[in-house]
Amino acid sequence: IFSSEEISKHNSKDNGIWVSYKDGVYDITDFVDLHPGGEKIMLASGGPIDAFWNMYAVHKTDEVLEILEQYKIGSLSPEDQKPIDLNDPFSKDPFRLPVFRINSKKPFNAEPPIELLTDSYITPNELFYVRNHLPVPEIDPDSHRISVDLGDSSIQLSLEDLKTKFKPVTITTTIQCAGNRRQEMSDFKTKGLSWGPCAIGTARWTGARMLPGVLLHVTYNHDIIPLLDGDVIIAYKMNGVDIPRDHGYPVRAIVPGYVGARNVKWLRQITVGSDESTSHWQMNDYKAFSPSTTFETANYKKAPSIQEMPVISAISVPKPGSIIDPEDGMVEVKGYAWSGGGRDIMRVDVSADGGNTWQEASLTKDDPDADDSAHCWAWTLWTAEVPVAAGKVEIICKAIDSANNCQPEWIGPIWNLRGFLTNAWHRVNVTVE
Amino acid sequence: IFSSEEISKHNSKDNGIWVSYKDGVYDITDFVDLHPGGEKIMLASGGPIDAFWNMYAVHKTDEVLEILEQYKIGSLSPEDQKPIDLNDPFSKDPFRLPVFRINSKKPFNAEPPIELLTDSYITPNELFYVRNHLPVPEIDPDSHRISVDLGDSSIQLSLEDLKTKFKPVTITTTIQCAGNRRQEMSDFKTKGLSWGPCAIGTARWTGARMLPGVLLHVTYNHDIIPLLDGDVIIAYKMNGVDIPRDHGYPVRAIVPGYVGARNVKWLRQITVGSDESTSHWQMNDYKAFSPSTTFETANYKKAPSIQEMPVISAISVPKPGSIIDPEDGMVEVKGYAWSGGGRDIMRVDVSADGGNTWQEASLTKDDPDADDSAHCWAWTLWTAEVPVAAGKVEIICKAIDSANNCQPEWIGPIWNLRGFLTNAWHRVNVTVE
Repeated sequence: IFSSEEISKHNSKDNGIWVSYKDGVYDITDFVDLHPGGEKIMLASGGPIDAFWNMYAVHKTDEVLEILEQYKIGSLSPEDQKPIDLNDPFSKDPFRLPVFRINSKKPFNAEPPIELLTDSYITPNELFYVRNHLPVPEIDPDSHRISVDLGDSSIQLSLEDLKTKFKPVTITTTIQCAGNRRQEMSDFKTKGLSWGPCAIGTARWTGARMLPGVLLHVTYNHDIIPLLDGDVIIAYKMNGVDIPRDHGYPVRAIVPGYVGARNVKWLRQITVGSDESTSHWQMNDYKAFSPSTTFETANYKKAPSIQEMPVISAISVPKPGSIIDPEDGMVEVKGYAWSGGGRDIMRVDVSADGGNTWQEASLTKDDPDADDSAHCWAWTLWTAEVPVAAGKVEIICKAIDSANNCQPEWIGPIWNLRGFLTNAWHRVNVTVE
Repeated sequence: IFSSEEISKHNSKDNGIWVSYKDGVYDITDFVDLHPGGEKIMLASGGPIDAFWNMYAVHKTDEVLEILEQYKIGSLSPEDQKPIDLNDPFSKDPFRLPVFRINSKKPFNAEPPIELLTDSYITPNELFYVRNHLPVPEIDPDSHRISVDLGDSSIQLSLEDLKTKFKPVTITTTIQCAGNRRQEMSDFKTKGLSWGPCAIGTARWTGARMLPGVLLHVTYNHDIIPLLDGDVIIAYKMNGVDIPRDHGYPVRAIVPGYVGARNVKWLRQITVGSDESTSHWQMNDYKAFSPSTTFETANYKKAPSIQEMPVISAISVPKPGSIIDPEDGMVEVKGYAWSGGGRDIMRVDVSADGGNTWQEASLTKDDPDADDSAHCWAWTLWTAEVPVAAGKVEIICKAIDSANNCQPEWIGPIWNLRGFLTNAWHRVNVTVE
């Protein structure tokens, strides 16, 4: 009905975003799966914006599409429809194992299956959960520089500098997405990438310490120390090999005990200062609110950023829905537990009778190959023998960290509109024969 | 019936403890209130042990008295009863304000009234909760020395040394007893000193830093750093005056963010090393267990010591049982919130409808007069305006700390046999007119 020219005219008037449809029927699946030469076109300032729309594919959500709906002005006539080279920015993303549970294809967000997660203390690189906001950048390791802004001056570090001018240290840390286990909050009342309990993994990261390495060059400033702990490193190896592209090749910041988002991948710039970064991800995302806060009342300026993570645990064995044949009335339960800020796991309690009685789990922790400080950055794996009755059984786990913090019993009191920090008791429902 | 000689004979045979009664009737109140010349006598190795019994008065509990009961061998004949000089070791304890709620008189354990607790950010010395295991020692400040054992050598520090050889720093910290709010666990199923929610207070402590002061003298040992944070001080002033005797005169260790018990009063010795102290209070007390652990199954060797404290909050206004005349349907609720390990309080939620809706409290924190590092050692006071319906109302508060840890909803899942770490949501029941 409308020609491209007409759309352009509309658009230049109020600077909006315009969506046109071939058939006038709004079809989200088709829209999200837009491909080169596809039928759906978005125009802004008179030209197609599909390339940008695909780049920032994180916006392909029901909410954003609903907002866009009001800007629809009509359908292009068949004559106006020409194939567009969309130049899919995700076409050069790395290969991933098909075993992943994919929560979003572009950008790629996926977690390993729960039955594999705790099979080894160190998570294999190929099974480490992937959380990308954008396409994976292609970086030339030889020309790549990390700029360290020290206020008055700056340092440019090459990958070679990092590997040769600083003593390599290996830190074993668990990295967890702020949205790990969000699915449980979504079941309650949130939207967002519905992560299961596997947006977490543990790896040995090798790199240069930021404190004795880079920061000895700057004036000692007591206030910065807590932010740049001695175990914060610029890593170039993950479990002994070059960091895979999905996980930050060629260099990544490892900030142990902090939310995954702060373990910046594809590191390019470090700024030393006392002010909080004004980046979108620091200021306007990764913040939690009270259960009564809505998108309308959320005050992102006032709310503090998510940095250190709370104590969490989850059951990896048995899987939800399993049918169990117990041995002498006992079932073996396995899982992981972790706390942020370098806090150790002191105890994991497991119950199969609604929390009336608790069995203390046996704990496996520490990586003897790591150069860590006395902090406990990596997770604890655990196993418990739990008595079970026949029938439908809910298995529950909860952990206590070395600051004696515990997990909340259910989602309700910690629910937040962005679905972050789901650390309620983990519950797995099974049938016991 | 038995003479002292006969008792002595029994005693020497199996090295037991013997209790004799004047009237053969077991009366705990009389027993606990034993005073010089009193009627109850305990003998061991042929002599009265009342002086020691009174010294270690922490044993005057139902449980210990029940154990002693089995050793009762009879009553002394009136002729054998002679007044005994008990030399009450508590007779030289300092004067305390009568306003305290006393949980134990000897040793003195008391907390200020809740309605005064949060009236000021800094707790007045005279209202700071007192937790003593023994009589308050009488220490001559001029001859007192602090011995610092460095392994190969040791340093003796006088009070004068501490005040003149080290730069004085002032740290504002909240100190909290591991048993704060134990009464709520006791109502569930624990015995012990039934602390209300006021075994907590905040003071400015002035003293010498242990890290840049004492420890620069020793070989740098990375493992020790987390234990001797830069804000750990040997304090000699509390809120600008000499530390009161009840709080550690003349010197006390201030270990911010750790359980009150580690803020050692009447400090005499510091040992630098990598092994945990083998003291009774470190090894066999101040440990928490799972709700299913009993005195019989508790393994004190395996359980870790309580060090850093979890996030907590409590309501100080209104008082439980208050009758409230709301203004425009709103009531003002006040209280405190705190977390150990230097973690800040990010948010306090208050509800008067069973947690269906939460009001975010306004927070007051930080002491501009302190020399603290970036850590947040002192509590947050808070105020919230909460809508209330007429009738019986339960007001609830819960806090989130900067590691995103939250408080558990009720006592059950955190209950432990010693009644430590009561940090469930605080609930105050009132009547709204």
